Amino acid sequence: MADLTEDQLYARLQELIGRISDLDEEAMTTIQGRLDSLTKPQGSLGQLETLAKQLGGIQRTSSPKILKKAVLLMAGDHGVVEEGVSAFPQEVTPQMAYNIMSGGAAINVLTRQAKADVFLTDVGIAFPLEGDIIHKRVANGTKNMAKGPAMTRQEALQALLVGAEVAAEKIQAGYNLFATGELGIGNTTPSSAIVALLTNSSVEDVVGRGTGIDDAGLIRKRSAIEKAIEVNQPDATDALDVLTKVGGLEIAAIAGSILQAAASHVPFVIDGFISTAGALIAAKLAPKSTAYMIPSHGSVEIGHCKALAGLGLDPVLNLNMRLGEGTGAAITFYIVEAALHILEEMATFADAGVSEKSN
Amino acid sequence: MADLTEDQLYARLQELIGRISDLDEEAMTTIQGRLDSLTKPQGSLGQLETLAKQLGGIQRTSSPKILKKAVLLMAGDHGVVEEGVSAFPQEVTPQMAYNIMSGGAAINVLTRQAKADVFLTDVGIAFPLEGDIIHKRVANGTKNMAKGPAMTRQEALQALLVGAEVAAEKIQAGYNLFATGELGIGNTTPSSAIVALLTNSSVEDVVGRGTGIDDAGLIRKRSAIEKAIEVNQPDATDALDVLTKVGGLEIAAIAGSILQAAASHVPFVIDGFISTAGALIAAKLAPKSTAYMIPSHGSVEIGHCKALAGLGLDPVLNLNMRLGEGTGAAITFYIVEAALHILEEMATFADAGVSEKSN
Repeated sequence: MADLTEDQLYARLQELIGRISDLDEEAMTTIQGRLDSLTKPQGSLGQLETLAKQLGGIQRTSSPKILKKAVLLMAGDHGVVEEGVSAFPQEVTPQMAYNIMSGGAAINVLTRQAKADVFLTDVGIAFPLEGDIIHKRVANGTKNMAKGPAMTRQEALQALLVGAEVAAEKIQAGYNLFATGELGIGNTTPSSAIVALLTNSSVEDVVGRGTGIDDAGLIRKRSAIEKAIEVNQPDATDALDVLTKVGGLEIAAIAGSILQAAASHVPFVIDGFISTAGALIAAKLAPKSTAYMIPSHGSVEIGHCKALAGLGLDPVLNLNMRLGEGTGAAITFYIVEAALHILEEMATFADAGVSEKSN
Repeated sequence: MADLTEDQLYARLQELIGRISDLDEEAMTTIQGRLDSLTKPQGSLGQLETLAKQLGGIQRTSSPKILKKAVLLMAGDHGVVEEGVSAFPQEVTPQMAYNIMSGGAAINVLTRQAKADVFLTDVGIAFPLEGDIIHKRVANGTKNMAKGPAMTRQEALQALLVGAEVAAEKIQAGYNLFATGELGIGNTTPSSAIVALLTNSSVEDVVGRGTGIDDAGLIRKRSAIEKAIEVNQPDATDALDVLTKVGGLEIAAIAGSILQAAASHVPFVIDGFISTAGALIAAKLAPKSTAYMIPSHGSVEIGHCKALAGLGLDPVLNLNMRLGEGTGAAITFYIVEAALHILEEMATFADAGVSEKSN
């Protein structure tokens, strides 16, 4: 991709977006009929029923199946850390990447439990690293957005297409349910900027403590975001401009992977705050992609509910988590599978000889 | 138990309550230390961390383990259905009991997925039935509470002790994680009465549509509850009096099973509205039992959040469900197991060579 011009990259992104279609209404209607025949009050399984229908609409079949599941974990660094916005030093990004490669991180534990895989992609960690990681480095992290654009438009497009490429490879390998995941010290800062701009919220309303900064850090973080918006003047109606000026490489890759999955009729479970910022970028680039998104948890990070509301997603888990890595989304795989078990395995009123509702 | 006098039954209940102790603080402190050493910002796994600590405090060990899991599903009928409070006819209670015995109900699907068992107990279905069900019938359903007490104090005590007995047998068989479950046409009506009385709420604030009654049914339901409270004058400070006058046999058994589990250091996941009414009875009889309760989902039934708040429980699932049977609690088993996997399997900062927080 490094040899493509900005115009060629943009054309490729537009071609991808053009392939995203609406869900299959016929499959969803058939599934609704089946759900209403099962031995339970109609609609009483709530979100499980909604998920079963959504999966059918996405896969374009009344018998949706999950084959292989993966968390696509995108990693990148952030120049804005020099403003003192994170509680952890930047070397924690590669250290945690190695921890993930050796199976010791929370996301490893939760994907093992879920019988899912985790694929870690280096979209732009500031330090080069080796091992079991997909090498797709676009840059050595972003620039400090408080002083100028986080990246060039060319880099933003490359990072979007890196995400799409990783998703395409894994779909080719038989995966048909994904979760977002991310790693990158400082990445709640660009995410807050994205969410503020794309949901038309004030910076104050979306900036939280990330991995746990103190009061002084919180003030520095808000100030860095305000400076970044002031200096770069991103056009809030242009998601690519927002991504370029105040975004992140891993956030771009998350957005791109969602777009590719949607184009290939594959659902994506959206994790926490940073992932939702990526999903917002995808949604603004391709509004039809939101139909392929499955909500997971509501994070402690204060801007998360605004970001989710911007996507029309209602979280299914309430765990007061704020870790990222895809941890909330990985737990949600189980709930998606529950929805399909209900659809496939429950007896109907007729099968079981149960009387139906009398009024 | 049928040969015991009311006083003997009461003494047995008091003896059970007397065996419930506080959680083990030392185990919880050790677990907190371990959680804080793991490669994540402190506290960032939210409820998973809380659950890991709670499990340790309950099992009185810093290495809590789940051995075998079961939903203890209590079934009973309700004389108040003659007031027209339910959308389904009363014969649905035995029909659904047979559906559960043959594996076709939602709870069967979800316990299979969870690798858990479901044990169905007939505490007082109005029609006798055969098959794979634990026979512990206290009465042929309750009486119509809108006209007099739902049951005698003797029956309420028997039903409480039936629940305790079933839990004790399953603990003896090696189960160490339970979920509540219930089946009984009309049972949101007594549950609403219990929740209104024990949380000091108005009837209007806690009465919902149950399995799906229409507006006229909702008015009949509210009226039946108001009549029941007017006719019986239950003493809201006396949970046994409330249970006797406006309760249910399966609700009593749920409360009794929770008390037994707590006395045996076994945690109980609390399902939806009816289960939470049972848990409220347990909590009022034995305040220490609440420490053994694990929240599951927030039901659509409007009184559920009041009932949960009365127990100090914050639901972990937000699935807009309103089915009962233990369905929300069965899904929650997975989250409890996730908490223990995190505690056992994650790398520490020292193991992984990851830098700790810098401020």
